[in-house]
Amino acid sequence: MKERIVLAYSGGLDTSVAIGWIGEATGAEVIAVAVDVGQGGEDLETIRQRALDCGAVEAYVADARDEFANDYCMPALKANALYMDAYPLVSAVSRPVITKHLVAAAQQFGATTVAHGCTGKGNDQVRFEVGIQTLGPELKCIAPVRDLALTREKAIDYAEKNNLPIATTKKNPFSIDQNVWGRAVETGFLEDIWNGPTKDVYDYTDDPTFAPVPDTAVITFKEGIPVAIDGQAVTPLEAIEIMNRRAGAQGIGRIDIVEDRLVGIKSREIYEAPGAMALIAAHKELENVTIEREQARFKKTVGQRWTELVYDGQWFSPLKKSLDAFIEDTQKMVNGEIRLDMHGGRAVVSGRRSDTALYDFNLATYDEGDSFDQSHARGFIELFGLSSKVASARDQRLGL
Amino acid sequence: MKERIVLAYSGGLDTSVAIGWIGEATGAEVIAVAVDVGQGGEDLETIRQRALDCGAVEAYVADARDEFANDYCMPALKANALYMDAYPLVSAVSRPVITKHLVAAAQQFGATTVAHGCTGKGNDQVRFEVGIQTLGPELKCIAPVRDLALTREKAIDYAEKNNLPIATTKKNPFSIDQNVWGRAVETGFLEDIWNGPTKDVYDYTDDPTFAPVPDTAVITFKEGIPVAIDGQAVTPLEAIEIMNRRAGAQGIGRIDIVEDRLVGIKSREIYEAPGAMALIAAHKELENVTIEREQARFKKTVGQRWTELVYDGQWFSPLKKSLDAFIEDTQKMVNGEIRLDMHGGRAVVSGRRSDTALYDFNLATYDEGDSFDQSHARGFIELFGLSSKVASARDQRLGL
Amino acid sequence: MKERIVLAYSGGLDTSVAIGWIGEATGAEVIAVAVDVGQGGEDLETIRQRALDCGAVEAYVADARDEFANDYCMPALKANALYMDAYPLVSAVSRPVITKHLVAAAQQFGATTVAHGCTGKGNDQVRFEVGIQTLGPELKCIAPVRDLALTREKAIDYAEKNNLPIATTKKNPFSIDQNVWGRAVETGFLEDIWNGPTKDVYDYTDDPTFAPVPDTAVITFKEGIPVAIDGQAVTPLEAIEIMNRRAGAQGIGRIDIVEDRLVGIKSREIYEAPGAMALIAAHKELENVTIEREQARFKKTVGQRWTELVYDGQWFSPLKKSLDAFIEDTQKMVNGEIRLDMHGGRAVVSGRRSDTALYDFNLATYDEGDSFDQSHARGFIELFGLSSKVASARDQRLGL
Amino acid sequence: MKERIVLAYSGGLDTSVAIGWIGEATGAEVIAVAVDVGQGGEDLETIRQRALDCGAVEAYVADARDEFANDYCMPALKANALYMDAYPLVSAVSRPVITKHLVAAAQQFGATTVAHGCTGKGNDQVRFEVGIQTLGPELKCIAPVRDLALTREKAIDYAEKNNLPIATTKKNPFSIDQNVWGRAVETGFLEDIWNGPTKDVYDYTDDPTFAPVPDTAVITFKEGIPVAIDGQAVTPLEAIEIMNRRAGAQGIGRIDIVEDRLVGIKSREIYEAPGAMALIAAHKELENVTIEREQARFKKTVGQRWTELVYDGQWFSPLKKSLDAFIEDTQKMVNGEIRLDMHGGRAVVSGRRSDTALYDFNLATYDEGDSFDQSHARGFIELFGLSSKVASARDQRLGL
Repeated sequence: MKERIVLAYSGGLDTSVAIGWIGEATGAEVIAVAVDVGQGGEDLETIRQRALDCGAVEAYVADARDEFANDYCMPALKANALYMDAYPLVSAVSRPVITKHLVAAAQQFGATTVAHGCTGKGNDQVRFEVGIQTLGPELKCIAPVRDLALTREKAIDYAEKNNLPIATTKKNPFSIDQNVWGRAVETGFLEDIWNGPTKDVYDYTDDPTFAPVPDTAVITFKEGIPVAIDGQAVTPLEAIEIMNRRAGAQGIGRIDIVEDRLVGIKSREIYEAPGAMALIAAHKELENVTIEREQARFKKTVGQRWTELVYDGQWFSPLKKSLDAFIEDTQKMVNGEIRLDMHGGRAVVSGRRSDTALYDFNLATYDEGDSFDQSHARGFIELFGLSSKVASARDQRLGL
Repeated sequence: MKERIVLAYSGGLDTSVAIGWIGEATGAEVIAVAVDVGQGGEDLETIRQRALDCGAVEAYVADARDEFANDYCMPALKANALYMDAYPLVSAVSRPVITKHLVAAAQQFGATTVAHGCTGKGNDQVRFEVGIQTLGPELKCIAPVRDLALTREKAIDYAEKNNLPIATTKKNPFSIDQNVWGRAVETGFLEDIWNGPTKDVYDYTDDPTFAPVPDTAVITFKEGIPVAIDGQAVTPLEAIEIMNRRAGAQGIGRIDIVEDRLVGIKSREIYEAPGAMALIAAHKELENVTIEREQARFKKTVGQRWTELVYDGQWFSPLKKSLDAFIEDTQKMVNGEIRLDMHGGRAVVSGRRSDTALYDFNLATYDEGDSFDQSHARGFIELFGLSSKVASARDQRLGL
Repeated sequence: MKERIVLAYSGGLDTSVAIGWIGEATGAEVIAVAVDVGQGGEDLETIRQRALDCGAVEAYVADARDEFANDYCMPALKANALYMDAYPLVSAVSRPVITKHLVAAAQQFGATTVAHGCTGKGNDQVRFEVGIQTLGPELKCIAPVRDLALTREKAIDYAEKNNLPIATTKKNPFSIDQNVWGRAVETGFLEDIWNGPTKDVYDYTDDPTFAPVPDTAVITFKEGIPVAIDGQAVTPLEAIEIMNRRAGAQGIGRIDIVEDRLVGIKSREIYEAPGAMALIAAHKELENVTIEREQARFKKTVGQRWTELVYDGQWFSPLKKSLDAFIEDTQKMVNGEIRLDMHGGRAVVSGRRSDTALYDFNLATYDEGDSFDQSHARGFIELFGLSSKVASARDQRLGL
Repeated sequence: MKERIVLAYSGGLDTSVAIGWIGEATGAEVIAVAVDVGQGGEDLETIRQRALDCGAVEAYVADARDEFANDYCMPALKANALYMDAYPLVSAVSRPVITKHLVAAAQQFGATTVAHGCTGKGNDQVRFEVGIQTLGPELKCIAPVRDLALTREKAIDYAEKNNLPIATTKKNPFSIDQNVWGRAVETGFLEDIWNGPTKDVYDYTDDPTFAPVPDTAVITFKEGIPVAIDGQAVTPLEAIEIMNRRAGAQGIGRIDIVEDRLVGIKSREIYEAPGAMALIAAHKELENVTIEREQARFKKTVGQRWTELVYDGQWFSPLKKSLDAFIEDTQKMVNGEIRLDMHGGRAVVSGRRSDTALYDFNLATYDEGDSFDQSHARGFIELFGLSSKVASARDQRLGL
């Protein structure tokens, strides 16, 4: 029996060519795996048929949009995950769910190897392969672009020579990855980091300079998860989609940074994540209202590590699971409503209310009837500052 | 000889009354100390005269604007200091410089006690008193509002009865503190955290909803400090002032959060810091370009601790000094230019260039001539993921 | 009806006197609460009777030894909790369990206030009172030594004048607190930190200089908890007691440090914790064998914060619960056996075996048949070091 | 002109053979580089001659013992560097100093490549190669054992066939690395982690079970560095050597752990580091006396990162330099004397005195005349615990 390889298949030129390319290079049968994580574009049935038409022996397609939103985007929201304070892990959270389906397909179809379309200098190869090693320690990995010299030019030639049912028009100047949590754009003239992005870079967001009238959403959270928008119950997927549309119309969630890749280089990235950025802004402020100070301070450290770990492709690692246990525990009280004003690129919280708030009007107010006993302050200050005071008295005694 | 008390003096009603109030309550002579940290308003000479007219035996005034910008705001910029990812430590960085002058005045005039106008439930009492304990361990502290029952109503009565040269008009509904690094507003109807801020809350920023035409600034940094704007050399103070004006005109730097105070309560705060927020945005992106990944990741932890420490009034603590040593070391290479597009509440970096960049076009590019050797990736991935792989193989072996 | 106060009662002179002292000072009825956390000494029935004889209106006694071992010592073991890398939180973990019983007694007997015997300069007052605030936010706290001027001399006078059934012999030169997790000794000549401890300081441990023949224990752990010793099933309490005896006979677990108290001062402390230190040594090494590297590295940070938090009296805080969730998750695989050689003050792990080990002989061995593929190393090293290499190339280019 | 390769040369069989082996495999000239870091054994002149006799075209030898002690061991002491709380980075700190000499030799002799004797599964290959990449970004690396298939058996054959002036007796059952900071032993029967170490594993330490009479040393530190022992001035190198001898005689500093290697595997390691462990024990306690609490708490985090970074071969990284800046700042006040009692494997601090102490007898004492004002405690406790109290009141209100 022939060896079998499952291939992460997008329906585009490169992976359509890869079906035959891998088959010719390795002698193996190729099974195409397409996973819908909300990237839009063609429907799964069209993609499945193309895979078969391009020579795949089987095609496995999965609508993973709800799974992705529930089990991958929501944990990122709970962690307020922004790599380098900026990037909401758009591709980084989609790789694990795709990996899960790749490994499931490999097991279902008896494949020994998983193939993906990544190059050898990005993060995604690491995310795929570390994930595959972890979920299927017996599986091998192969990347045609990196390992089998499949360049763009060769792909076009191959498609034309073999009459593959796929357009071979000139490549988009950018390298793009997108899903419901956001969209990533890189390469092209953006590699000169003095160049600003041009309008054609963007797709999920309208230009914030010419925004429509302001829009206000009231988002209801339960245990850190959005469960309603403007009083209408929503699933996590719906929450993201609605906010993508409404925040996107206001030009919210455009990001432009030079980023530290795991492989040791800096790269310039443009992201659009209107829904993710709006939801994170709302979620963070609800945490401010409902999470105790020391818990919140340490959660930042946990969230930073979670974010680095997921960026670095360690979604399935033991540490990730333990960090999740911490984060889940902090979310129990993150309930309530956030009013989010959206306009011209800005998503600003202007109101919050919560039955589980730790904000206590009677403690906070400067009005009459305040329940805070100010007489405690002197003793607090004295002992809070004592260790520094002793140190500075020492330094002064020694003339330092 | 009478005991002497130095009083942090603003020139306003409360501290004008406090001069006599403290004198009557303690029998001590009061020396008024006014420090200009860019808060605007009356000139120091007017304030000095009013202090004397209100009964101060001496008045010490200091134009500390450059000192404040150089030695207090710039370290905050280098730390990218945003408490709870939001608040640029507006009051928190001004308290130490004022404290320094209070202690200097106490030593110059032979005072044994320092008085300040804070209440007993805020952060600023801690910042003043821990600072005073540290710089002058022999000094005592007193706060008339907290310790001598000086309420607003009593202040108005006192001023009228004693004909103090100060207006006793109805109080501003808000409690406000401002300096060149920003402006803080609290209390009033903002204590209901569902209420959005009204227009009259703001003073440093225009409404971002109706912004003028976009403005673009090119900011040059040297070792983490802004040294020129649009090619024009600037001091740190000038950089902040210029950006306050230009970013303020675009409505940049409005912040609305529920915040964790050191004294254990949550409070609702509105801030405006157009210059600070614009400079931090530019500085962070220049760090992204010039600081190595692991250094940058750990600097976030250091910056978070620095920020909490300064928020908590520990500016003069030993740990703060050691964190500064770390941060200074990271800034040596933070040189270059940032192009900052400002419009409608947004300050967005669209270009960066630096002779000390770690961004390397030849490593990053997907064009021909790339110097990155993709063959290293497989070995890297294998060993980078090995410890997780061994753990998941264990878990699978045990059926977990 | 009279107000009621529950008093943390030890049966000793100071708290026996406090029963009447508090009654006289406040007019309240006093309910004595004695909790056995393995401190040894008199039985609970004797203590209960003495409380009543000294004027308590009720006496609540609880054998909390298993509860203490299971729910307070075991979490400390899982955290490898050593404050300042040295102190196994002997008193710090007993205060919360005592607090729980104090609050339960207050609720049972309708008391409004909780009294404890601590001074105003130690950690234990904070641990009791923050715990009481947290478990019973409606309860008040009082400390006769700190708040009602109850000195040792006054206590002796009071006991003699009132014929209390308690010896009033000269005080032990040291202040001592002990329970099954360890023993703490302070004050007296130890306050001169150049003085070494004398033999009479110690009680739980024999002199390690003259140790009996070496002793070896094989300790079996399940999910981080000791469940058998030398093949004999044990409860957590038994495990601690057995190891106290066996490690104590070898002089293991003596600690002598200058420690940072929460109230801002440094104090000199002697501890003995033979069982705790032996169990922690074994547990840590079993973690080394069973926990993945990155999880282990971050667990150190979590464990440090857990330890500081518990030391600082925040056992019942939200952050403590979230840290526990992290730690629990890490312990699932901490199963296996540790061989611990004990002799002359040393507890040294010499062997470990575990079905859940991540140590893999075939990966680790330098023998033939090794399953580690050394060809991965070059690629790993190249990319692992790339960001530093780019930085140093930059520095050299610039002549730095 | 022929290409030239510098080889890290120990004088032993493997690297003696490597001279010719590399030459034959690559056609390059080999320059042997031997660095004395206190490993003992043959003198440098003997080693130089053997290198030349084995075919090296040049031999570079360096007595780096003082450089190693001053610039590599002392920073580790200041960081209290114990990887996994146990391993004092014996090999990890020697690799950078050797690397520095390798790169210097490469530049002096015009070599393009650096060769070392490490295998492909350990940490040292990473430490060498990342260091070389960093100090000499233009240099290539080669490892004959890993890259040129030089096994032990082939080495013996080669030496015999070529009459190399080196013994080819049966290999020591262990793999050993040693220097003045300590000694590392691995492989052989130790790979079965249930096996305890046998006596022949040890060389730097005598058996602690049969120790001579107790020994007490008074160690004087200045800014974190030992400058005198028992009143006799010492250099850092002398301090380590003296303590190696005295602590080694007492069997101090034996370590037996399962350790997480950077390459992703766990390995079993035996270390001996009598001087290092004794000095670290003394240094830590002097820090306890002289460093302020919050500075000390954060220094643990810095020290852990420093230790991981150095273990991971990142000595020359930008982050390491910034962490050093932090640590240096903390050491300014680490002055004074520590009395260290050494006996039977234990190194125990029993006394400390320091002009820069933060321990303040008058604050700490429970005697009369105490300068600590206990009345501050109530206010401190109230506000210190307030945020937790508010959270628990919320939880109780909600019945959670």
